[in-house]
Amino acid sequence: MILGGGFGGLFAARALDRAPVRVTLIDRHNYHLFQPLLYQVATASLSPADVASPIRWVLRRQKNVEVLLAEARAVDPVRRHVVLDPENVIPFDYLLLATGAAHSYFGHDDWERRAPGLKTLDDGLKMRQQILLAFEAAERAASVDDQRRLLTFVIVGGGPTGVELAGALAEIARQSLRHDFRRIRPESAHIVLLEGSPHLLGAFPEPLREAARHSLERLGVEVRTDAQVVGVDGEGVLWRAASAEPSNAPRRIAAETILWAAGVAASPLARSIGVPLDRAGRIAAEPTLAVPGHPTIFVAGDICAFAENGKPLPGVAQVAMQQGAHAARNIVRAIRQQALESFHYRDYGIMATIGRGSAVGDIFGLRITGYFAWLFWIFLHIFWLIGFRNRIAVMFEWAWAYITFQRRVRLITAEHAWQRSTDVPSDRRPD
Amino acid sequence: MILGGGFGGLFAARALDRAPVRVTLIDRHNYHLFQPLLYQVATASLSPADVASPIRWVLRRQKNVEVLLAEARAVDPVRRHVVLDPENVIPFDYLLLATGAAHSYFGHDDWERRAPGLKTLDDGLKMRQQILLAFEAAERAASVDDQRRLLTFVIVGGGPTGVELAGALAEIARQSLRHDFRRIRPESAHIVLLEGSPHLLGAFPEPLREAARHSLERLGVEVRTDAQVVGVDGEGVLWRAASAEPSNAPRRIAAETILWAAGVAASPLARSIGVPLDRAGRIAAEPTLAVPGHPTIFVAGDICAFAENGKPLPGVAQVAMQQGAHAARNIVRAIRQQALESFHYRDYGIMATIGRGSAVGDIFGLRITGYFAWLFWIFLHIFWLIGFRNRIAVMFEWAWAYITFQRRVRLITAEHAWQRSTDVPSDRRPD
Repeated sequence: MILGGGFGGLFAARALDRAPVRVTLIDRHNYHLFQPLLYQVATASLSPADVASPIRWVLRRQKNVEVLLAEARAVDPVRRHVVLDPENVIPFDYLLLATGAAHSYFGHDDWERRAPGLKTLDDGLKMRQQILLAFEAAERAASVDDQRRLLTFVIVGGGPTGVELAGALAEIARQSLRHDFRRIRPESAHIVLLEGSPHLLGAFPEPLREAARHSLERLGVEVRTDAQVVGVDGEGVLWRAASAEPSNAPRRIAAETILWAAGVAASPLARSIGVPLDRAGRIAAEPTLAVPGHPTIFVAGDICAFAENGKPLPGVAQVAMQQGAHAARNIVRAIRQQALESFHYRDYGIMATIGRGSAVGDIFGLRITGYFAWLFWIFLHIFWLIGFRNRIAVMFEWAWAYITFQRRVRLITAEHAWQRSTDVPSDRRPD
Repeated sequence: MILGGGFGGLFAARALDRAPVRVTLIDRHNYHLFQPLLYQVATASLSPADVASPIRWVLRRQKNVEVLLAEARAVDPVRRHVVLDPENVIPFDYLLLATGAAHSYFGHDDWERRAPGLKTLDDGLKMRQQILLAFEAAERAASVDDQRRLLTFVIVGGGPTGVELAGALAEIARQSLRHDFRRIRPESAHIVLLEGSPHLLGAFPEPLREAARHSLERLGVEVRTDAQVVGVDGEGVLWRAASAEPSNAPRRIAAETILWAAGVAASPLARSIGVPLDRAGRIAAEPTLAVPGHPTIFVAGDICAFAENGKPLPGVAQVAMQQGAHAARNIVRAIRQQALESFHYRDYGIMATIGRGSAVGDIFGLRITGYFAWLFWIFLHIFWLIGFRNRIAVMFEWAWAYITFQRRVRLITAEHAWQRSTDVPSDRRPD
């Protein structure tokens, strides 16, 4: 049985294509999400259907796989079954646990309401709505102060997601929305990227970090590293320099929109197995990806803590894909009573884009930046997109956006959500 | 001032392009919806962004137009202002009321929860989710009876929307989902179209009605005309032959999914003006499209009752477009103190599609059916789509769907909504 239809679960199912097993893949969504492009849904560049494919459809030809839309509540490793929500039990012979990770607010779960994260398609749609509504509310704002607060966007977390969000937001404000408003100048929006550590893109080599920072600053993003968020409230964000004395008063940024791209915490299902977890709630897997003491349970992706040469593997799609496929092959070995093999990560590199025509990447040790890196990023992501259909659609959307500077998917769905925003000023003239 | 960014409001704004007026267009959504294709969102063929464009973007170059995202609560025709929600007042010199219509449940508003209609983008997304979840729940159903009920879809209303929905649903079940399930056969889905009058497509000439009925039956849709819905409940639909004695017991169709494509009721804003309304809540406009007794208020589209040669105009996009533009020109005439002109509808014809490669149409009195009619329908709709960008995207989606029989947009968003559906059977085997 496979829990989770992300990169880990899907690649495991595919690896079992011709194996003499019956596979049940359980996910609480009916789609596989291409998470590296989710920020483009949040920033109105791509439609949900461009970055997601129904899991059933992806696996439709694989007759030994059954897909189940359900939420797993717990794993019972002794009785070897999974408890579903609503209450229901499904037994397994072997289990691959690949349910990924959610956001972590460092113990401040109340921040989530004000500072949504970006993990699911619904998160992406909510974030898109929030960004677009901020501009709408600013257009109707009664005072200059309100307007400024409504046009201030704070992104917390300087990893790839934070950097990509900041770049895309800057482009929306400076280019896509330019001609659309009458009372505000969208290009005056204030975009702030806060990162607690001294560097953006901590996993990247030093020169690339600097290149990313310069690209963002050229787009008008205010980048603050060494800036720890100590509060999120109705008014905005409180932050303090990491090096400052705790007695120093934190500084405030008045902002309507706060986007969370910081810490992750593994899926709570990890806890139900009853093995020790690391600080992020992940299971430290054996070299074979089996869970220590539970030879029939394997893990892959963000729920799995795995170090190679003393360095922990990053939480990226590549790792999840390779682990999923490896765990699946080890399960087949276990069934055949063969010796299991250890997992080794083949690192093809890392990349991040910073808006139109700019990216940084470290590919097979080769460091690339700028326009060429951006083209390579596009090629790579089109290539990796699940399903031939999505590739063409995304290519088309990107070509269109590149030519027109437009973002087509600027729809505020979900009724009446805008009513929370500022009132219309009463000083409006008749038309 | 224009209330409503549908076909009426948008074409009015465009007609005022070079007029010496300042226009405020108010809509409660930030997008214009191409409603004739909304059923394709509901049936997972098109993404929301394919059938909707941000109103701001459509009107971005028209500097005398200001777009406001807000919901109008009432019109005060004496003080000449519009009351917004949240409480707020905007004065006007001239008003075009073009806020359209919503569904009517013939006094049974409690049916709405079980039998959603199709007017807004959110309606379309909800309907899509409901349809897809029914198949998911059927796959997990514990009994054959449950399965049958979950795979029964009842569409109420045999106008163009009902006919198009029924055709698209039949294709989803028979083609798109064919290989995706393991426990159910999606092609065994039972699709019933109920129409209270003796004919489908009442506005079409007789031979075309018959052609549409045959096309639907060829797709396996059970068509029941003369069938009046007298009840909607948790189990399904109750209906009775229109000709039957009232003492006859109604008949029941056990169905999880009931889709409402029947009566319409004009936007409640019509009531606030204080003029007599017709049975559907619409304002009977003067020949100039002005509201009787209120020379500064005009109406266009579904909120306007207008008869020509004793025949009421249908509630279609063409009428709204032409009325919107005409009302706008009359407002300019009124400002210039010129005589107003009467509205005359130029009828280019009507069309409806019935699934892949089949349509019926009455174009300039020419009756067409079958494959040629379908090609013509595609051409017409691509041509009318607002915004060059959407045309290409939609053309691409359709070409893709035609070649592959697939529907790409099969995403169930909105978290946990599936939990309402049937439990997983407890007799599942281990995998």
